[in-house]
Amino acid sequence: MPPDLARINAYIDAHRDRFVEELRTLVRQPSISSQNYGVKECGELIRKMMEEVGIEASVLPTNGQPVVFGRLASPKAVKTLLIYNHYDVQPVEPLDAWEHPPFEATMVGERIVGRGSTDSKGNLLCHLKAVEAFLKTDQEVPVNLKFLFDGEEEIGSPSLPDFVEKHRDSLAADGSLSFDGGFDASGQPRIQLGSSGLLYIEIRARGPKRDLHSARARLVENPAWKLVWALQSMKGRDERILIDHFYDDILPPTEEELKLLEDSGWDDRAHLEEYGVDRFLLGLTGIAASERLLFQPTCNISGFKAGHLGEGMKTIVPAEALVKVDFRLVHRQNPLDILEKVKRHLAKHGFSDLEVHCLGYIEPSRTPFRSRIAQALISAARENYRTEPVIKPTGEASGRQGPWLASRLGIEGAASGVGPPKWRGHAPNEFITTGHFIDGIKYAANVWSKYAQS
Amino acid sequence: MPPDLARINAYIDAHRDRFVEELRTLVRQPSISSQNYGVKECGELIRKMMEEVGIEASVLPTNGQPVVFGRLASPKAVKTLLIYNHYDVQPVEPLDAWEHPPFEATMVGERIVGRGSTDSKGNLLCHLKAVEAFLKTDQEVPVNLKFLFDGEEEIGSPSLPDFVEKHRDSLAADGSLSFDGGFDASGQPRIQLGSSGLLYIEIRARGPKRDLHSARARLVENPAWKLVWALQSMKGRDERILIDHFYDDILPPTEEELKLLEDSGWDDRAHLEEYGVDRFLLGLTGIAASERLLFQPTCNISGFKAGHLGEGMKTIVPAEALVKVDFRLVHRQNPLDILEKVKRHLAKHGFSDLEVHCLGYIEPSRTPFRSRIAQALISAARENYRTEPVIKPTGEASGRQGPWLASRLGIEGAASGVGPPKWRGHAPNEFITTGHFIDGIKYAANVWSKYAQS
Repeated sequence: MPPDLARINAYIDAHRDRFVEELRTLVRQPSISSQNYGVKECGELIRKMMEEVGIEASVLPTNGQPVVFGRLASPKAVKTLLIYNHYDVQPVEPLDAWEHPPFEATMVGERIVGRGSTDSKGNLLCHLKAVEAFLKTDQEVPVNLKFLFDGEEEIGSPSLPDFVEKHRDSLAADGSLSFDGGFDASGQPRIQLGSSGLLYIEIRARGPKRDLHSARARLVENPAWKLVWALQSMKGRDERILIDHFYDDILPPTEEELKLLEDSGWDDRAHLEEYGVDRFLLGLTGIAASERLLFQPTCNISGFKAGHLGEGMKTIVPAEALVKVDFRLVHRQNPLDILEKVKRHLAKHGFSDLEVHCLGYIEPSRTPFRSRIAQALISAARENYRTEPVIKPTGEASGRQGPWLASRLGIEGAASGVGPPKWRGHAPNEFITTGHFIDGIKYAANVWSKYAQS
Repeated sequence: MPPDLARINAYIDAHRDRFVEELRTLVRQPSISSQNYGVKECGELIRKMMEEVGIEASVLPTNGQPVVFGRLASPKAVKTLLIYNHYDVQPVEPLDAWEHPPFEATMVGERIVGRGSTDSKGNLLCHLKAVEAFLKTDQEVPVNLKFLFDGEEEIGSPSLPDFVEKHRDSLAADGSLSFDGGFDASGQPRIQLGSSGLLYIEIRARGPKRDLHSARARLVENPAWKLVWALQSMKGRDERILIDHFYDDILPPTEEELKLLEDSGWDDRAHLEEYGVDRFLLGLTGIAASERLLFQPTCNISGFKAGHLGEGMKTIVPAEALVKVDFRLVHRQNPLDILEKVKRHLAKHGFSDLEVHCLGYIEPSRTPFRSRIAQALISAARENYRTEPVIKPTGEASGRQGPWLASRLGIEGAASGVGPPKWRGHAPNEFITTGHFIDGIKYAANVWSKYAQS
């Protein structure tokens, strides 16, 4: 028997004010991971909030900030859903740009203003309050739930891969779901079925022991030139990446995914303006541009540093040159495999004396549109918000959230977000509205129900 | 009738102590051009010293520090020699590394320790004292002399090109001579018949209006990549510069110049050690290496700056990228012509949107080994120092000294130096010995005589 969502929604409405107060309590607890400010205290607060609604919760150590882990077993449920969220927040600087203190959760009309109100404490709390609504209306949650609340998302979740490996058994689930951020600028709910991967490397070339007078460039190899030649061997002016087998594992977008792009309302002019450029790379426009943004990998120079960086003339052969290259990867490309391919490429082209150092990587992920979790989100979003969601078959950026976690665990995963449009994420005066928060609790409850029935 | 050098040398020896005291007076007057410290006072002191020995002298304004200009007409002389020198000095930092204050001209045995003692006040004063020796022994100087004493050599003589253009008529001469620095580390006098040219440019590529998230590298041109492709179009991995007509004006070294290289005592190991490398570019060794150092131009990356220069990961498409490229040029290459060729190259290869900015240039120079000024120096060096001079057919570095001045004026020019080996130029505890200074006066007198007779 499917749950009685009407009763659940009525419960949520009846306890609206208390739920809002609980969110304000959570926002008032700072948890800035990059400054190690209040994160552990926030983890503990969340653990308590989980236990108060009946979730078995514990704070588990990692190499960095703790993970708050929780379980809720439902004897009659068949499927298990792993909820990913994060309880850390961005720094608050510039402080003087805040109209209200960032950790006071000031009410301004219907807005709760504060760091983390949308990103991601409001999103996180929706799940806990949805659990409460099920249990307090004497209904079983229709899926078994597991919760992984990350304390380092805002610094790139560096400890998460190790944590996942260590707790692989505890994390076993059929699908994963994460809520973060909010609605599209258009006012539609957003559903994301994947994210890009990332490989970030430094390539260092060494020249003479110290900077030399550039008259000696006649006899001494210049490490900046070596990087120039190595880089140009890696990518042509047509943007084609020339590393052997670089593209081998990539699957082209499916018909359905291309259809999603067509429905996405892509607007060249808006993107050109946002990027601050006159034209897209290779003269692309329209769907072709949006397809490239989601489905093509990159080989990008994020930084290049060699020799004299100041004003004016200094004539030297630099002692060393360093380039930072990031590869944005797409579904089925494995960052460590790409790293090996880069190294083999450099060796093959006579650059084996270059030093390649991997600074970090994130696996790409892409969950099919037809997957249960995607369909549950889409169906719930239509019902709860009475509008078509914007569905992103994958994400242009990279992160270790629900889709990544799913990919890592070999399960389906998707992400959505309950915050308002333009919620000022990472910026001063971040907010959520009470309406978006309360609607988000109902949305979470419906997503679980739809997933259980699928 | 040639001058009686024996009488001249006897006069120099007889007034040795006074000459040394005059040099100490000159060293005690600071003249640090990069700090604008004492330069004008030093120029004035030199003007007085010139007039005391009978040279008509004046301090002439430039766009920067003044030039001290002088003339000495000899009614019976046929040829005119233009003496280039500089009266400014390097800074003295680090001050605590000096064993004696840099502007006290302390005597330490036979050493006069002080900034500028060799570079180049000792060298400069040789010419004035040689004039005195001729005139006080009732002999005409066998050549008409003109003196151009630069007050900005240590900062690259930025005002000299304009000054030369403005005073071209006054500077008219048959040849130019400059003394600077000192003997080779081997203890042999050094004669230099030219210097390299230089063209220094910045090439700037502009990307998005501000740094963008690197996920957008799929749609936005990365300016660092554009520079990479532009640079690789300019020089191949075989070090061949690929700019059309870049090498057109270069003359290969003559048989005589190659012979000079063979006689130069080039030592691979010493140079490898000095440069801090294991091997020379392209695997060159011996004479081939020394020939490349003196006779081949370069296209060198002195600096490359784009995007994230700090530690760790930052994933961006940089808003701009800047490369500093210096071209070391050789005889007959014209820096402004090369600049045009670079611009044409970039336009031809589809990089016309790159911004090329010239930061400075110096013309190369090379005076033939068979020239009168070279032969006069060689012959005088052999007589005065009773050893073979080390003759450099040109110089690897670039500067606006005698050979440059000659090239600019369309006359022969050569350079030598009277200081001791390892005189600590530009370093703490710079010194000259009284012997090297006194011998230098005799050397100057003999060079003029030989030049007059040639």
